[in-house]
Amino acid sequence: MALKKKPVTGMKDILPAEMAIRDYVIRLIKETYATFGFSSMETPCVEHIENLCSKQGGENEKLIFKILKRGEKLKIHEARTENDLVDGGLRYDLTVPLSRYYANHANELPSPFKALQMGNVWRADRPQRGRFRQFMQCDIDILGEPTILAEIELILATTTLLGKLDFKNFTIRINDRRILKAMAAYSGFAPETFDTVFIILDKMDKIGMDGVAQELAKEGFAQESIDRYLSMFREVTEGIEGVRYLRDRLDGVLDAQYADDLEMIMKSVDAVKNADFKIAFDPTLVRGMSYYTGPIFEISMDEFGGSVGGGGRYDEMIGKFTGNDTSACGFSIGFERIVMLLLERGYQVPGTAGKTALLIEKGMPADKLLVVLNEADKLRSAGTQVTIAVMKKNKKFQKEQLTEEGYETFQEFFIDKM
Amino acid sequence: MALKKKPVTGMKDILPAEMAIRDYVIRLIKETYATFGFSSMETPCVEHIENLCSKQGGENEKLIFKILKRGEKLKIHEARTENDLVDGGLRYDLTVPLSRYYANHANELPSPFKALQMGNVWRADRPQRGRFRQFMQCDIDILGEPTILAEIELILATTTLLGKLDFKNFTIRINDRRILKAMAAYSGFAPETFDTVFIILDKMDKIGMDGVAQELAKEGFAQESIDRYLSMFREVTEGIEGVRYLRDRLDGVLDAQYADDLEMIMKSVDAVKNADFKIAFDPTLVRGMSYYTGPIFEISMDEFGGSVGGGGRYDEMIGKFTGNDTSACGFSIGFERIVMLLLERGYQVPGTAGKTALLIEKGMPADKLLVVLNEADKLRSAGTQVTIAVMKKNKKFQKEQLTEEGYETFQEFFIDKM
Repeated sequence: MALKKKPVTGMKDILPAEMAIRDYVIRLIKETYATFGFSSMETPCVEHIENLCSKQGGENEKLIFKILKRGEKLKIHEARTENDLVDGGLRYDLTVPLSRYYANHANELPSPFKALQMGNVWRADRPQRGRFRQFMQCDIDILGEPTILAEIELILATTTLLGKLDFKNFTIRINDRRILKAMAAYSGFAPETFDTVFIILDKMDKIGMDGVAQELAKEGFAQESIDRYLSMFREVTEGIEGVRYLRDRLDGVLDAQYADDLEMIMKSVDAVKNADFKIAFDPTLVRGMSYYTGPIFEISMDEFGGSVGGGGRYDEMIGKFTGNDTSACGFSIGFERIVMLLLERGYQVPGTAGKTALLIEKGMPADKLLVVLNEADKLRSAGTQVTIAVMKKNKKFQKEQLTEEGYETFQEFFIDKM
Repeated sequence: MALKKKPVTGMKDILPAEMAIRDYVIRLIKETYATFGFSSMETPCVEHIENLCSKQGGENEKLIFKILKRGEKLKIHEARTENDLVDGGLRYDLTVPLSRYYANHANELPSPFKALQMGNVWRADRPQRGRFRQFMQCDIDILGEPTILAEIELILATTTLLGKLDFKNFTIRINDRRILKAMAAYSGFAPETFDTVFIILDKMDKIGMDGVAQELAKEGFAQESIDRYLSMFREVTEGIEGVRYLRDRLDGVLDAQYADDLEMIMKSVDAVKNADFKIAFDPTLVRGMSYYTGPIFEISMDEFGGSVGGGGRYDEMIGKFTGNDTSACGFSIGFERIVMLLLERGYQVPGTAGKTALLIEKGMPADKLLVVLNEADKLRSAGTQVTIAVMKKNKKFQKEQLTEEGYETFQEFFIDKM
C-alpha cells in the first residue's frame, strides 16, 4: 500500500528552513498591517463555481481546479459538460472572495473596512520553475474610502513592511488609469483601441520607445497619433514635475484634480516613508486588470527582474457584485517572491539565537530524566528553543545534524555523572 | 452578474473578531511549540486521489472533496465511475500528507523529526451546528523517537500551550493500547472481538458500568469474561496506583515495562507541568483510530463536554507507507474547539490595548494631512494600532462603530485649528 511520494504536479512540500521564513514573514505582515488598522479576515478556499466563472477573473477562469459534485447531485451518465459535474472550485485569487464576503457581511463590517487577507490560491498553470499551482496571496484592501487617504495608507503599510524585511532601494512606480486614458485620447487614439495601445505601451521597458513606435505603426495607428503620444513619454520625468507636466499638457482632456491627487499621494508617501525606497511617476505603467479605475501602483526591485507586488483603485467592481457602489483600493504583495528573495539572500529570522539541544544518555531513569526536563523547562520558559534528544552512537554526526538545524548550544547528560 | 453571497454549503466566512483570536492562537502555537523544538512544515492542500483512498482514513475517505481532471485527461463521455473523472482531492487530515512528506524527504530531515503542521482540512460531512466542512487542524508529531521522551515532550508542549491560553482544571486522560488489549485478553475475550469490546467500553462515561455489562452481554460474550473484565474497572484508580494495580494483576499477559513506562510518563508530566491540569490514568480510554500501538491520550475539559485534542503512538503506520519502520507519536489539538471556547468566554487578545483612531476633517490639504500622517507614523512605530478616518456627518455613530472595533483613543483634526 505504498503512497505516491511526490506532491501532486505543480505543488510543493515546504521544508522546515523555508517554513521558518514563511512563518516569520506572515507574522510580520499581520503585526505591521495591524498597526495600520487592517483587520484579518478569511473566506473558504472553495468557492461556488458560478462566482469563479463570473468573468471577473479573466484568463484565470481557464485555470480553475474544479470540485466534483457529491452524492445524488452527481449524475455521471447524464453529464454533457464539465459544469454539469461540478459545484465548486478552488479560488484563483482573493478578490472575488472578498467581493462575496463584503456583499454577505456589509452590515456587520465597519465602514471603511480595512481588510487583510492571506491565503492560498490555486491555478492550474503549466508547471514551470519557481511558479506553483498552489501559492499564498497577501492582499490589503480598503473598502468604502473614496479619498486618496486609502492609496497613501496602502502604500505606507506595504513599504513599511518591506523595510522591516530589510528590502532597500526599491521603487514604487505609480500612475493613474485616467491619466493613461487621457494621454491616449489626447493623442487621437479611439477609446475602443485603448486596450491594444496599452498592451504595446506595457512593453516599453523591454522594447524601448522605438519598439513601441514600430508596434503601434504595425497595428495601423495614424503616425500623427503615435508621434504625439510618444512625444509626451519623451518629455515626462519620474518626479512630481512629470505629473505637473502632463496635467498642463492634457488640459481639457484630463481633470486636473486627478493629477493633483497623484502629486499629493507621491508627496505624502515620500514625506512619511519608513523605508529606503523611492516613489516614481511612471506613465507607462498599465497593470493588466481592466477593473482599475484610478491610481495604480507596482513595486519594482532590481534584485528581482519584475514586480513584487502591486495594486490600485477599483471603484466599480464591488458594486457590480453587490448592487451597491463601493469605492475600493487594494495592494497585493507577491508573498512567494518575497520569500524566494529572502531564501536566496540567506535571510536569518531574527530572535532564533541560542537554540539549545540537551543530549541524554540512553536508558535514563525517571529521577534523572526529571532533572533534564526541569532544565529544559527553565530554558523554554525564558523563550529559548530547546530540544531533548537521546544520544546516538555517532554523537559527532548527531551534533552536526543539530547544528544544521540551528542548534548552537549543547548540554550532555550522563547517567553516572548526575 | 450578481454573485452568490453565501459561502459554499458547510463552510464559513471568518469575521474580524474571530480572526483576531485565531491569529493570536496560531501565533502562540508556533511560538510555544518552537520552544519545544518543533519545526513548521507544510504540504499542499491537494493530494493524489490514490493517497487519500489508501484505506488509512477510515470513514473520512467517504467524505473527500474530489478534484476534476483537467484538459485532455478528462474524458467525460468515457467515464464510468467517479474515479475516472478525478486525479486529486482535498486532504481530510494531516496524517496521510505527513506520511507522504516524510517518505519524500526523509533524507533531508533530521532524526528524530519534530514536526508542527497547521492547516485546513476538508470533509464533506452533513452540515451541522458548530461543525464545518473546512476546518483547521494542528498536529505535532515526533518521528523516529522510540522512547517515552516523545510522549512526555508532546504532552508538556500541548499543556504548556493550553496554560498560556488561560485554560485551567483540564485533564489529560492517558491509557496504553497494549494495556487495553491485555485487559481484554486477560478477561478471556478473543482477539478478533476486541474491536467490538472496545466500542462498548468507549461508552462507559455515558452508560456507566451496568450499561457496559448489559451491552457486552447482548453481544453474546460469556458472563464470566464480562465479570472479570469489569471487576478490574471497579478496582482501578486514576492515579499511578491504578497503573501499578493493573501491572500486577495482568502479570504474564502484559509486559510490565509498558506499565512502568506509563507510570514514568505520568510522573514526569506531573513534575514538570506548566499549567493547572491533572494527568489521569483512564483504562476506558479507547480512541477510535486503529493505528495506535502504544500510549494514547486525550484532553478533557469540563466547560466543553468532550475531547479538545488527543493523540498517541503509532509506530507501524509510517513504515506501511514508506517501507521503512519509523516510530511515531503525535498530539493533535482541536483548534476550532479551542477558538470556539475562547470566543464564548469573551477572550481578549493580549497586547491590543491603546488602539487609536485619528479622525480628520474632510478635504484636508496636503500640508495638514502630512501632520496627521506623521502623528500616525510615530504611534505605529511604537507598536500602536492606528487608523486614520475621514470624519463622517454622524461623528457620534462613527465613534461608536470604531469603539466596537476596539478603538479606545480618539484624536480629532480640524483644518482651521491646525
